[in-house]
Amino acid sequence: MEKPAGTDYPIHDLLQRRWSPRAFSDRMVEPERLRSLWEAARWAPSSFNEQPWHFILATKQDQTEYTRLLSCLTESNIKWAQHAPVLMISVAKLSFEKDGELNRHAFHDVGLAVANLVLQATAFGLVVHQMAGIYPAKVRELYQIPAQYEPVAGIALGYPGNPETLPESLRQRELAKRTRKPLREFVFTGRWGQPSPLASR
Amino acid sequence: MEKPAGTDYPIHDLLQRRWSPRAFSDRMVEPERLRSLWEAARWAPSSFNEQPWHFILATKQDQTEYTRLLSCLTESNIKWAQHAPVLMISVAKLSFEKDGELNRHAFHDVGLAVANLVLQATAFGLVVHQMAGIYPAKVRELYQIPAQYEPVAGIALGYPGNPETLPESLRQRELAKRTRKPLREFVFTGRWGQPSPLASR
Repeated sequence: MEKPAGTDYPIHDLLQRRWSPRAFSDRMVEPERLRSLWEAARWAPSSFNEQPWHFILATKQDQTEYTRLLSCLTESNIKWAQHAPVLMISVAKLSFEKDGELNRHAFHDVGLAVANLVLQATAFGLVVHQMAGIYPAKVRELYQIPAQYEPVAGIALGYPGNPETLPESLRQRELAKRTRKPLREFVFTGRWGQPSPLASR
Repeated sequence: MEKPAGTDYPIHDLLQRRWSPRAFSDRMVEPERLRSLWEAARWAPSSFNEQPWHFILATKQDQTEYTRLLSCLTESNIKWAQHAPVLMISVAKLSFEKDGELNRHAFHDVGLAVANLVLQATAFGLVVHQMAGIYPAKVRELYQIPAQYEPVAGIALGYPGNPETLPESLRQRELAKRTRKPLREFVFTGRWGQPSPLASR
């Protein structure tokens, strides 16, 4: 199933096709493709080239590790994410390597890297669904994550599956229309809240 | 000038070509291309579809607004960013619309959206250079940004220019080799700091 964005202005095919489904095929993701995903993340820009992004990985081919990572997700996410062949948790380093000062862009730069990973996944025909619903304290404890790092989000990854396999409530969300705010609500010029004349035709 | 990433594993052409130069052409960016950039950002995923991203925009075609936005950048960034035809500041909404609770993924999700914008820019042959070096308090004051929003980063955007036009110190940085940490330093399995067996050939 595909669910391209209903765009008001043309965007690149990869960006238009990207979406976050909950139905996954049980087809395993090829290891060389996984490496290309992290390589895509790797070349993201970051504040002072700090590269604050990290990923904890588990695949269905290692059931012990998979179960451990799955246990870091909230119940409502486990319901569907348990079928994804690959799970990850993104982790941000909150301080700079060079001087230990706070990196206020740590979460932002993890986002830049993950978006690259997602676009590379889309290019491979893979789908990615990120999850805010994780237990950061549990992640920290289970994986012994030091204080200057912070778990960010869960990531479910795999080839697209059949929405019919989802429980009814999730199937409805899978098929629901995708919505976004119009440009005039987030592109401003001159002062806060004033739509930029360039943001509408 | 192009400066493709020296990748260890293959990645999509758009991701490989993206980089953050400091030399910009004075060619103006077509308004319809700007709209496609924001449209690309618009379709990024976000926690609870909150879409916490916002952009303050100024172009060289409105000198008053351009000068105002430029004044929010640090001196070392003004040196080169003053030649970019388009400047933006990304702004995150820190609380959820529905209940006012803290959105811990606000900065992260702004990063997801900006990465989409950057990839769309790359597809158009445009270049983007983000800047951590802004004065957030000044941005807030000049644009009257409410408390629940936070300025994130500066964004310089345009067509690529000639590195020879840069001052000597910046020209050297423009031509320097691009570097990143290897995968084994940020992809872990089992416990923190343990490289995933899948992250190396």
